[in-house]
Amino acid sequence: MLDPMKPDATAASLIYDDVRSVSPALEHYTKEFLLDGLWKRGALSARDRNIITVAAIIARIQTREMPVHFALALDNGVKPAELSEIITHLAFYAGWGNAMAAVAVARDVFRQRGIEPDQLPPVDDKPLPLNEEAEGERSRQVGENFGAVSPSLVQNTTELLFRGLWLRPALAPRDRSLITVSALIANGQTAQIPYHLNRALDNGLTTEEAGETLTHMAFYAGWPCVFSALPVVKDIFGQRTR
Amino acid sequence: MLDPMKPDATAASLIYDDVRSVSPALEHYTKEFLLDGLWKRGALSARDRNIITVAAIIARIQTREMPVHFALALDNGVKPAELSEIITHLAFYAGWGNAMAAVAVARDVFRQRGIEPDQLPPVDDKPLPLNEEAEGERSRQVGENFGAVSPSLVQNTTELLFRGLWLRPALAPRDRSLITVSALIANGQTAQIPYHLNRALDNGLTTEEAGETLTHMAFYAGWPCVFSALPVVKDIFGQRTR
Amino acid sequence: MLDPMKPDATAASLIYDDVRSVSPALEHYTKEFLLDGLWKRGALSARDRNIITVAAIIARIQTREMPVHFALALDNGVKPAELSEIITHLAFYAGWGNAMAAVAVARDVFRQRGIEPDQLPPVDDKPLPLNEEAEGERSRQVGENFGAVSPSLVQNTTELLFRGLWLRPALAPRDRSLITVSALIANGQTAQIPYHLNRALDNGLTTEEAGETLTHMAFYAGWPCVFSALPVVKDIFGQRTR
Repeated sequence: MLDPMKPDATAASLIYDDVRSVSPALEHYTKEFLLDGLWKRGALSARDRNIITVAAIIARIQTREMPVHFALALDNGVKPAELSEIITHLAFYAGWGNAMAAVAVARDVFRQRGIEPDQLPPVDDKPLPLNEEAEGERSRQVGENFGAVSPSLVQNTTELLFRGLWLRPALAPRDRSLITVSALIANGQTAQIPYHLNRALDNGLTTEEAGETLTHMAFYAGWPCVFSALPVVKDIFGQRTR
Repeated sequence: MLDPMKPDATAASLIYDDVRSVSPALEHYTKEFLLDGLWKRGALSARDRNIITVAAIIARIQTREMPVHFALALDNGVKPAELSEIITHLAFYAGWGNAMAAVAVARDVFRQRGIEPDQLPPVDDKPLPLNEEAEGERSRQVGENFGAVSPSLVQNTTELLFRGLWLRPALAPRDRSLITVSALIANGQTAQIPYHLNRALDNGLTTEEAGETLTHMAFYAGWPCVFSALPVVKDIFGQRTR
Repeated sequence: MLDPMKPDATAASLIYDDVRSVSPALEHYTKEFLLDGLWKRGALSARDRNIITVAAIIARIQTREMPVHFALALDNGVKPAELSEIITHLAFYAGWGNAMAAVAVARDVFRQRGIEPDQLPPVDDKPLPLNEEAEGERSRQVGENFGAVSPSLVQNTTELLFRGLWLRPALAPRDRSLITVSALIANGQTAQIPYHLNRALDNGLTTEEAGETLTHMAFYAGWPCVFSALPVVKDIFGQRTR
């Protein structure tokens, strides 16, 4: 794996010398426990770890980390089309301004690497098949609960998200779910975890991968985010094995 | 409406070309669903949409979005004095550092437009009338609940906020409430929504406007923030129609 | 106290003129209620106020505030080794990207002041004594609750945090707890407050100091964060006096 903190990684990024000049201990933790520890554990692929790191960084607008982690993701097998689609997805799941902060960085990374428009997901593409029954049930419940509170929100949620964005083939549904769950954990939105974690598991994420995602997010979003998510994740795991 | 993403909008802001170079789909969503869709819906005035967008951007420290959205707000009928007071209000409701990030940008926008000190709200101005009964009851409850935990907080809340900031005439109480509720949604502070949404509705915000605020915030703060707020908003609406 | 907003404070920071050009009222509030009011109250030492302000700023990635508040902390008696360790601690408690944003600023502040590596906490240092009983109980509970959900998280929590980071002598346990609780409040992570506030009180923080920390955080993280924390803090205080 490219070491994101070697001098040649990217021009503007922090390197070990910088970290050591502020905290030799943090340099040590970054080397030993993060890059040579966490990232090398087999419970998640390097590509998965890049996807969830990028999701956490965009969800929290950690702009300084974007250049090196976008570059690292591309080096570790995340396709330009996938990075593009992660940003599009997080416009809806973390906020338009978060996505725009990522656009400003990804634009430069794509330019440096000569990534052309034909490598990016088109506006319209053959949608993935829809599970009409599950989506009908989701839509019915949300409409019944909240249709009178905000009819335009309910309508946008169905049309733009679940019959639009989620059917775009630029990301595998399992990856789209993994990104969503990671952003929810990073932003402490535990109330939305049950629906999306169930969806992630339905989309093929294993419970082992979900558990290791928590460990990875502990480093990138901080321990408290993850400990607030833990009881919810435990509940969902329990419901599914009953 | 000024298109915030046209080349001449502001020098440093992202333009459609930038977004397209990273994600043609996100450019499409921004044009069709956000700027030509959401922003043109009649359920909220353009001025209201500017106010809540600015509140979301400051609440989340989406610094890259500030220059263009501050300019847009001024073009859409938000007065310099009102933008000034939104920043002052959010020092208390989103944190001093959030307000200072906004000051750094607003300073330049105001300078470019030749906005002079006499266009800004004065330090002292004739306060709006106070509903003594409602404020007495709020103050009594908070004092009873939390006076022993943090007496200085209780005192500051009464003197600085409810007998100070909220009575400043630089913002209509309905607008001040709309800004507060938007910041609460954007930061996922659902526990504070009941008090402030009730206050907003008392101050003249309609339930239709509140519902459409949720839709607007879904785009600017992300869907999860809004779905976490929905059950609370539904409860408040229900209590008021009983 | 160094006035952080005087022209000579630091080159890049906002000064009163900037704030006044956007909001004379916010300048007034900053002078009268924040710097000449809150900061001069005796309920917390200036050093404590610097520690919790720095924690809030890093927890919320308020990058613009970092240079002046890091400098102010050093001027008010926070040692370079302590500021270094605060950043290391918040890598774990607010996220690696938050710590890296702080590293980028602290590197320059340390360089300007000629702070040398031998003034920083070493990677390995004689660990503080461990309360084996309390840690054994914490570890047992977390393992029982969540060991099956994410075994690697449970293991990292014990080894890296409670038998590692928390035993580093570069920060007094009481200060480490104060930083942790401040970051939890600033990020709205109320679910994690009970454990860490109890730990803080066990580590020597008084309830008066904890109550005044809430007041201080109201300004730096915004009133809503603090009002969401209040009921939890009240509960803990109540349980301990029973």
